[in-house]
Amino acid sequence: MNLKPLEDKVVIKKVEQEETTASGIVLPSSAKEESNIAEVIAIGKGISDDEKKQGEISIGDKVVFSKYAGTELELEEEKYTIIKFSDILAVIEK
Amino acid sequence: MNLKPLEDKVVIKKVEQEETTASGIVLPSSAKEESNIAEVIAIGKGISDDEKKQGEISIGDKVVFSKYAGTELELEEEKYTIIKFSDILAVIEK
Amino acid sequence: MNLKPLEDKVVIKKVEQEETTASGIVLPSSAKEESNIAEVIAIGKGISDDEKKQGEISIGDKVVFSKYAGTELELEEEKYTIIKFSDILAVIEK
Amino acid sequence: MNLKPLEDKVVIKKVEQEETTASGIVLPSSAKEESNIAEVIAIGKGISDDEKKQGEISIGDKVVFSKYAGTELELEEEKYTIIKFSDILAVIEK
Amino acid sequence: MNLKPLEDKVVIKKVEQEETTASGIVLPSSAKEESNIAEVIAIGKGISDDEKKQGEISIGDKVVFSKYAGTELELEEEKYTIIKFSDILAVIEK
Amino acid sequence: MNLKPLEDKVVIKKVEQEETTASGIVLPSSAKEESNIAEVIAIGKGISDDEKKQGEISIGDKVVFSKYAGTELELEEEKYTIIKFSDILAVIEK
Amino acid sequence: MNLKPLEDKVVIKKVEQEETTASGIVLPSSAKEESNIAEVIAIGKGISDDEKKQGEISIGDKVVFSKYAGTELELEEEKYTIIKFSDILAVIEK
Repeated sequence: MNLKPLEDKVVIKKVEQEETTASGIVLPSSAKEESNIAEVIAIGKGISDDEKKQGEISIGDKVVFSKYAGTELELEEEKYTIIKFSDILAVIEK
Repeated sequence: MNLKPLEDKVVIKKVEQEETTASGIVLPSSAKEESNIAEVIAIGKGISDDEKKQGEISIGDKVVFSKYAGTELELEEEKYTIIKFSDILAVIEK
Repeated sequence: MNLKPLEDKVVIKKVEQEETTASGIVLPSSAKEESNIAEVIAIGKGISDDEKKQGEISIGDKVVFSKYAGTELELEEEKYTIIKFSDILAVIEK
Repeated sequence: MNLKPLEDKVVIKKVEQEETTASGIVLPSSAKEESNIAEVIAIGKGISDDEKKQGEISIGDKVVFSKYAGTELELEEEKYTIIKFSDILAVIEK
Repeated sequence: MNLKPLEDKVVIKKVEQEETTASGIVLPSSAKEESNIAEVIAIGKGISDDEKKQGEISIGDKVVFSKYAGTELELEEEKYTIIKFSDILAVIEK
Repeated sequence: MNLKPLEDKVVIKKVEQEETTASGIVLPSSAKEESNIAEVIAIGKGISDDEKKQGEISIGDKVVFSKYAGTELELEEEKYTIIKFSDILAVIEK
Repeated sequence: MNLKPLEDKVVIKKVEQEETTASGIVLPSSAKEESNIAEVIAIGKGISDDEKKQGEISIGDKVVFSKYAGTELELEEEKYTIIKFSDILAVIEK
């Protein structure tokens, strides 16, 4: 099963924040802030067809997005978020 | 009887979420979250006439839409929702 | 006496919802939800002059509209609603 | 003394609603809803210069307007309302 | 000292409403509603340069404006209001 | 040290209101209303490059601006405000 | 690891405000107002490709930005803020 985002939408999967602090203590989940880092899963055709946007993001990229933007979705026990291209702020390059 | 959506509107029918959890327990209806997955019933002429939008969705497609968007309607004992094309986020492909 | 809507406005008349449920029980009026189905009474010249909109609706059509949109009006003991073309969501075809 | 509305503004004068109901009872003023029917007093040059708007309304026309739209004004003991052309919904033709 | 309004701004000076009612009684100031009639003091260059707006208002004109629009200003013991051209609704002609 | 405003932004410095009233009484600071008169300190390139805006304001001009508009900033013990050109309402000419 | 901002976004790093007042007293952190001065870390391609924006800011510039604008992000124990170019108000030149 596959998700094909429409127009300028992007399917992302939130990346869990590190659970251990610098000093090595594991934080209980209630103390963890919601992550605004995610992996790109699928990219709408409106992005790859747009001269200014194409090549800005690729599937598999780690990206920073506007926290709380987008719509959450659960499909086959996996959680996804669908956001607009303009809610992606930056790509984290290795 | 038939519903012909105008301009860029789409008639959809919400898909009931699975009633059994992974462990096989049937959840009572109050515990079920409202679904944001639906089936496309009819597509406005403004979409099929638009070069960028035509072919993005087809009748019968399962789609993810912005929860709470659109207007609900009951016709001949069936419930429908009418939303704008831009509130459809992704198509679920098999 | 006649109502000529301006620009892209449409004069509609709300259709009373069925008062009997499937099982034949007549619901008291307080239990009836406000209808979002109406009949088209008059169409603004801005619609019939617009290539993309002309022919989408005709006088006498039953339409679905955005509930609570528009301005209500009482004229010669009859109640009308004036809405914009974009608040008409779909035509109910027989 | 005269009021010349600017651009796409229109000067209107609200028409008092009928004070007697169908059965002939005179309603006290507190029971009367505010009228959204008015007479056109003056039309801005931006309307008569606009190909799409000119001829849609004339001085003396009875019109339906968006209740509560516009600015009220008292001049020489007469009350006027100044609204935008787009807040005029329909002309009542005889 | 002089005020030169920028772009489409207009400097106006509110006209005090008549203090005596039709029957000749002088109203105490708390009973007086704030006036929405003013005199035009200065007109921005953006207005006199605009083909559609030039000539619509002149310095010295009595105008009706959107009450509460604009910014108030006290200069050399005189009170002025600076509003946009679009907040001027009509000119009162003698 | 220097502030170079971007695009259509303007750096201004608020002018203290006169501290003595007409009758010569010095008002304690809490009774003074916040000033909406300021001196222009620096002008963004987007203004001097714009045919319609260039020449409307100059460095050193006393201007009236929309009170509470803009962002305040303290730099080397001096307070500045950065506003958009459109929030400058008028120039006070001597 | 690197942050590549998309379109017209800019990655900045807030500059700590001076901790000592003019008289040399160190203020406890709760008394310090949040800084709206930052250093530019990375600039989106949409800015360097735009004739009107390119050259306005450079990496390493100290800039003033609209306080509370943007999205905060923690990466490898460093805090960043991602804002739009239009939320940068001025560059502080030495």
